[in-house]
Amino acid sequence: MLIVMKPHATSEEIDAVKKKIHSMGFTAHSIPGAQRVAIGVTGNKEALEAEDFIILPGVADAVRVSQPFKLVSREVKEENTIVKVGEVVLGGPQIVVMAGPCSVETEEQILEAAVAVKKAGAVILRGGAFKPRTSPYEFQGLREEGLKLLALAREKTGLKIVTEIKDTETVSMVADYADILQVGARNMQNFSLLERLGTLRKPILLKRGLSATLKELLMAAEYIVSKGNHQVILCERGIRTFETMTRNTLDINAVPVLKALSHLPVIVDPSHGIGLRQHVSAIARAGIAAGADGLIIEVHPHPDQALSDGHQSLSGEQFASLMQQVQGIASAIGRSLDSARDEPAVPRPRSG
Amino acid sequence: MLIVMKPHATSEEIDAVKKKIHSMGFTAHSIPGAQRVAIGVTGNKEALEAEDFIILPGVADAVRVSQPFKLVSREVKEENTIVKVGEVVLGGPQIVVMAGPCSVETEEQILEAAVAVKKAGAVILRGGAFKPRTSPYEFQGLREEGLKLLALAREKTGLKIVTEIKDTETVSMVADYADILQVGARNMQNFSLLERLGTLRKPILLKRGLSATLKELLMAAEYIVSKGNHQVILCERGIRTFETMTRNTLDINAVPVLKALSHLPVIVDPSHGIGLRQHVSAIARAGIAAGADGLIIEVHPHPDQALSDGHQSLSGEQFASLMQQVQGIASAIGRSLDSARDEPAVPRPRSG
Amino acid sequence: MLIVMKPHATSEEIDAVKKKIHSMGFTAHSIPGAQRVAIGVTGNKEALEAEDFIILPGVADAVRVSQPFKLVSREVKEENTIVKVGEVVLGGPQIVVMAGPCSVETEEQILEAAVAVKKAGAVILRGGAFKPRTSPYEFQGLREEGLKLLALAREKTGLKIVTEIKDTETVSMVADYADILQVGARNMQNFSLLERLGTLRKPILLKRGLSATLKELLMAAEYIVSKGNHQVILCERGIRTFETMTRNTLDINAVPVLKALSHLPVIVDPSHGIGLRQHVSAIARAGIAAGADGLIIEVHPHPDQALSDGHQSLSGEQFASLMQQVQGIASAIGRSLDSARDEPAVPRPRSG
Amino acid sequence: MLIVMKPHATSEEIDAVKKKIHSMGFTAHSIPGAQRVAIGVTGNKEALEAEDFIILPGVADAVRVSQPFKLVSREVKEENTIVKVGEVVLGGPQIVVMAGPCSVETEEQILEAAVAVKKAGAVILRGGAFKPRTSPYEFQGLREEGLKLLALAREKTGLKIVTEIKDTETVSMVADYADILQVGARNMQNFSLLERLGTLRKPILLKRGLSATLKELLMAAEYIVSKGNHQVILCERGIRTFETMTRNTLDINAVPVLKALSHLPVIVDPSHGIGLRQHVSAIARAGIAAGADGLIIEVHPHPDQALSDGHQSLSGEQFASLMQQVQGIASAIGRSLDSARDEPAVPRPRSG
Repeated sequence: MLIVMKPHATSEEIDAVKKKIHSMGFTAHSIPGAQRVAIGVTGNKEALEAEDFIILPGVADAVRVSQPFKLVSREVKEENTIVKVGEVVLGGPQIVVMAGPCSVETEEQILEAAVAVKKAGAVILRGGAFKPRTSPYEFQGLREEGLKLLALAREKTGLKIVTEIKDTETVSMVADYADILQVGARNMQNFSLLERLGTLRKPILLKRGLSATLKELLMAAEYIVSKGNHQVILCERGIRTFETMTRNTLDINAVPVLKALSHLPVIVDPSHGIGLRQHVSAIARAGIAAGADGLIIEVHPHPDQALSDGHQSLSGEQFASLMQQVQGIASAIGRSLDSARDEPAVPRPRSG
Repeated sequence: MLIVMKPHATSEEIDAVKKKIHSMGFTAHSIPGAQRVAIGVTGNKEALEAEDFIILPGVADAVRVSQPFKLVSREVKEENTIVKVGEVVLGGPQIVVMAGPCSVETEEQILEAAVAVKKAGAVILRGGAFKPRTSPYEFQGLREEGLKLLALAREKTGLKIVTEIKDTETVSMVADYADILQVGARNMQNFSLLERLGTLRKPILLKRGLSATLKELLMAAEYIVSKGNHQVILCERGIRTFETMTRNTLDINAVPVLKALSHLPVIVDPSHGIGLRQHVSAIARAGIAAGADGLIIEVHPHPDQALSDGHQSLSGEQFASLMQQVQGIASAIGRSLDSARDEPAVPRPRSG
Repeated sequence: MLIVMKPHATSEEIDAVKKKIHSMGFTAHSIPGAQRVAIGVTGNKEALEAEDFIILPGVADAVRVSQPFKLVSREVKEENTIVKVGEVVLGGPQIVVMAGPCSVETEEQILEAAVAVKKAGAVILRGGAFKPRTSPYEFQGLREEGLKLLALAREKTGLKIVTEIKDTETVSMVADYADILQVGARNMQNFSLLERLGTLRKPILLKRGLSATLKELLMAAEYIVSKGNHQVILCERGIRTFETMTRNTLDINAVPVLKALSHLPVIVDPSHGIGLRQHVSAIARAGIAAGADGLIIEVHPHPDQALSDGHQSLSGEQFASLMQQVQGIASAIGRSLDSARDEPAVPRPRSG
Repeated sequence: MLIVMKPHATSEEIDAVKKKIHSMGFTAHSIPGAQRVAIGVTGNKEALEAEDFIILPGVADAVRVSQPFKLVSREVKEENTIVKVGEVVLGGPQIVVMAGPCSVETEEQILEAAVAVKKAGAVILRGGAFKPRTSPYEFQGLREEGLKLLALAREKTGLKIVTEIKDTETVSMVADYADILQVGARNMQNFSLLERLGTLRKPILLKRGLSATLKELLMAAEYIVSKGNHQVILCERGIRTFETMTRNTLDINAVPVLKALSHLPVIVDPSHGIGLRQHVSAIARAGIAAGADGLIIEVHPHPDQALSDGHQSLSGEQFASLMQQVQGIASAIGRSLDSARDEPAVPRPRSG
């Protein structure tokens, strides 16, 4: 149920509605960013009666939400959610590109990558410090040392940073360094982690699970939002199918469907989505053409020496070429590429 | 094995190579369109010795083909295959759009659809006369009457026509009317049908099966080409996955992968690929952005009254809007839309 | 709609009901094998009114059929369909095992296989004469020569024979030799072939397509039955999933679901279902335990020399061991193995 | 690499081998349960030289392990791992059945369920106290109160208890109550949780993820075992496919493949595997017939009132019937059902 308040409803009227909801044993959620104040109700097992709310002073309407996801749905909030990361704006007309290596490996590597992706127009640097790996014997990331190197790269380039959060234990540590916390595909239904991230006030990049339906992805976002963190970015990164020529099958359909069902920003990860370096640009173009709000791309200064995902990482030059192509597609659909602009005047010496 | 002849090899030298191949019990295939004459060898169980051929007069090189598909692979023929349908050219720089109703229903319907799609810039009219349906109790198409109506629409508009071929029995009949014969997804591995189509000299539009790998799609094309018909167009139309919000999952990865592995033109069917009318345009844009050579789109003058696939058919206005969007994407990647130009000066009265 | 006649309805009353159905523009199907006469109605687009039929003399009831498949559903016919192949009975309490090589290769091979599988208890010999192959360059079967060899093996051993039918062109030829005609997975939705087989009066073994839903399998069976051939055997042979360790994923769930939804016999093909010789017996046991009416198993006298599917074929000894295990499982669920008994007293000299 | 010691190798010789491994920068793992002492080596990026170890005193052999999973593979340990839960033995000849409700709901419910499943022959009681749910608004379990009720049921019936562990935060609490800790499908690649469970000395029931390959399942088990906890039970519970008639597709192939690749016990969850109450017994029979070491089944005293998974839960009577069928299948393959025997002589009054 969504309670829509009249344009000039007083705060007393709003409080009275919330009190009524709580008195019924349910939860009231303020829906941010709407032109008019709206209050979502969750926790009810059966449909509520609109009449119970419409009679209250200041209430314009009470509408049933047909989808199982509530707070993340367009039914509840029609206008796009805008996620701000410093001056970077996700969910608006500009296309935002995040790029960088799969794993942070060394200071030289991450700085070289950061400079390259910034030069080509990326505004957010990606890099893994905690790496969930299929095998316990594979490189698991530099952990806090990796986070420090990301912070150093941010300091030197002005890029914002996004990095994966692997478990609840390291949420605080990662949140101290990162501008955006990424939930990996294998953690999409790690509900304890989602709930913990819901208590932060930092943007969360939520990747679709390998065999998660779009409904499940939206329900996972609902876990975060229902705990109070509205800054969620959805990411299509390919699903698991029978096809073996590509690492995953990027579900391009997900882009328009998610944009229609939800007000949250949607980005595409073509690197994991196809898993073949020579085709990442084609899929990046397709993602933007389909309506995505941004991209996250694996770029490594020396892809052939990467400790992970080298086969799908672009070199700096390849990435620069991709950015030009994406720029063209963005223009064709009336959008433009956000690009770095808050570079510190004088790069300061390393302090991390 | 591919035998590449020297630039000025004589026809005697070429014949000698073919004779040698036949004498070994294998099949020799001339590879059309190459700048230099090349001869493909098939039928061998084990790898051949290049030396056996390189020593022959006029032979420049003999190279092993690593893929299981031979004649359709880029290894064997580097330049794009160009499929010509009258003045329409598939596989070149221009984007070709085919559009029309799922099924031919009435004269009024198909003519109205044809006029609308032509006006919006389509150059080929689609429409089913023989409809393979999951249920024996569903509308199976108008059969020859449908073909006649398609021919009438061609006559009136100058559009070329593509229609589905359901079985070997009706190949001759359909070939008498259609400019392009379409093999539906469920027939992709109907090998007897593929072999029969290989004996025609008309373009074949080969749709990917619902759970066919890309390798299997290329092997199906190989069936047609190995029988002598080189005019094959590949079509990605969505695969079957666990996702239920969309009818199929359009495998956008297929576009760059097929273009890289094969010299055949590749088109995308966003109507079946997503199955939701409001999102067909987004997927059409994505297909072109990913590098497809064309589109095939379901358009119905009155989608809500369609006898089949109404929920995924566009109205004429929606299609016109899609075409403008596709035009923009095509320009952004340095391509353009082919558009109708051989309109008969004076539409003649119906004769079909 | 299913019209159930009263126990002693006269043939005039039955004819009157059919006449009424035809007069409404629909099709009447006699449902065989029921204790009481029943008549299925198909061809209607909207639900019919029961009242229109219940008022007719001799009619006991008129019930709506909720499933999209009609004649093959248990709603329409509660008792099991019994498919008889000579003295072999499928769909009753006895378990029927079909076994033999993937392809018929030579007289020695097929006779050796036939003797081995008969000795172990199989009652039907399988063997492919027309082989649909992914590649046009692979062994396509011995064609009519293969059929003759199967007939010879039948003559020598008394086994019945099942062989794949690849296309409509060869239906008559194959029907002249085979006791059961098999529709392969890739032909499950070759509707023209299904309709043609519906006009035969021979049992059809219908294999589930690689990505066919159970509903689609039942609709394919409906194509055959609606044309008048009620002798259809359903076969679960594995579906296509993301798992790569096994050739296919045998959908064991299909067995009880199909048995519940349909009155047709259901068998399991563990050879294709798992594709690994050493595990075929485990899956055969599982299939019978889940309620299958029979098995079809690949057995080759010399699996390592097989021209196709050698990696999943059992040797004669392995098959004999499998049969003992299956016997045990059958007993545990109150069923038994049918086994060969109509052996010719004196094997006659070859005549085929 | 696996180092196999000679039968009478001294502890000094064993220590010297481990020291050598550590000095090379790798990890040494004692392989428990082998008739001869063996030491696994992990942490090496490239294959090791057998010669480096074979020359050491007391070493019988050094063999390369070809699979990416090491400690859980049959290559490293040929005989079955036996998991003991009190007197219950998993992985030996006896079949172990775990049963109980999806969620612990009330004292009455869990006691009624416990008594019913024990009476029918189950030896382990299942019941969820922490429920990972797709929606944040669904019942999430009674948490510690649920664990106390499970302990009470154990006290009253003598059944052991298995319950799901949802996150690292609650590992200690759940381990205080449960005899077996279950990792749910959505947590199969929650690597931090797996590592934490690897430090316990309690059996872990590891469910296969919805789209996890068998290799990934074994790698997940490797995470636990490589941290020192060898008591891992693998569970096939159905994978996600395109089929919609059943909740999941139980991958029966997984049973023989896992048993062949690994020495760990394998059980089957037919309740989630098919998701339809009326067919759970058929799939349970199939699982045992295929070689599973046990079953885990959802049983609720009043399935229609269950707070979760009611549609796939059996009543007590249905479960009793299932147990008789399973008993028959077990006998047919030379195994038997373990059944409860350590019932407390006099049920003590509630203390929990």
